[in-house]
Amino acid sequence: MSKRKGEVTRERIVAQTAGLLNREGYLRTPVSEIMRVTGLQKGGIYNHFESRQALTLEAFDFAVARMRDRLLSAVASERSAKDKLRALIEAFRDSTQGPAMEGGCPITNMAVESDDADPELRAAARRAMGQLIGLFEKVVAAGIEHGEFAKGDARARATHLVAAIEGALMLSNLYKDKTYLHSVAERLKQEVSAGL
Amino acid sequence: MSKRKGEVTRERIVAQTAGLLNREGYLRTPVSEIMRVTGLQKGGIYNHFESRQALTLEAFDFAVARMRDRLLSAVASERSAKDKLRALIEAFRDSTQGPAMEGGCPITNMAVESDDADPELRAAARRAMGQLIGLFEKVVAAGIEHGEFAKGDARARATHLVAAIEGALMLSNLYKDKTYLHSVAERLKQEVSAGL
Repeated sequence: MSKRKGEVTRERIVAQTAGLLNREGYLRTPVSEIMRVTGLQKGGIYNHFESRQALTLEAFDFAVARMRDRLLSAVASERSAKDKLRALIEAFRDSTQGPAMEGGCPITNMAVESDDADPELRAAARRAMGQLIGLFEKVVAAGIEHGEFAKGDARARATHLVAAIEGALMLSNLYKDKTYLHSVAERLKQEVSAGL
Repeated sequence: MSKRKGEVTRERIVAQTAGLLNREGYLRTPVSEIMRVTGLQKGGIYNHFESRQALTLEAFDFAVARMRDRLLSAVASERSAKDKLRALIEAFRDSTQGPAMEGGCPITNMAVESDDADPELRAAARRAMGQLIGLFEKVVAAGIEHGEFAKGDARARATHLVAAIEGALMLSNLYKDKTYLHSVAERLKQEVSAGL
């Protein structure tokens, strides 16, 4: 197998596994399901990854990277902190349309599955969630500095925004009904406009 | 086996399985783990439940009932809608101390695990979440009727409160750090005091 072909196959496995595990579960999905969606035998998969855990971590990182790209491009086109926060909330609101987010937010999914069950996967979820809250916090802190928001705890406000949007994503995914996500996003955008 | 002894054993299995599945996962936890925490053989368990799925549903209902009792007793001792909502938020904030809530909120855990994977368990999560949002909505609607809150969409405000508190519970459980839950609860109580 040429190196180039091997890399292409590897990336395809990661992308296909990312969607599968985010829908069906990071921990519980059997390797037979990964074989089914990739069309590969067990040996063909483990030729590229040293373990099921290694593939799970790469698939999770892939889904999180897709989400992060989407959020970073949403803030990049805005100037004020209020506009950036509203753009982040809208990116979340519309995120269920993307293939990597089918099945909900990968970070929350991994968090709920791993928090009391798998320390290595939990560490990956903590890192990703830390970066997500950190992104919101940075924007809130800049808004405080430029007088868009009253002085106060940027971290607490970022946590509130992330908790509410993640909870709303969970509700919309449970009911397969975007009303929950849209309603909470509208409320959060009003809170941002009102100065948080 | 006398009927009485059988019932006691059955209830013990449900209670022990409820804690286990809420921590380790409703879908992925193997029956061998249920055997370990109950100290029973497979036959001893299936003597009381027709299937693993039936036991999972009973264990989930048990955890949800414990949570509901706690929330209902929190609102029962308050008179105004604002006091009732603040009591509900505080009951959630302190809920991680209860044994049935170890591992996070059973409804969110079941929701995230089942939403794209198991329609019967998802239906159970939808019913329980519907009752939870309904409890908040009823209090908000009473508050609107009695002039404690401005006229508006009681359902949307209830959804916002539940989404934020569930998201915060998830974050606290991910980081094993109650700061997230306490910070979001403080914020939501301020929103309630300010009229939602």
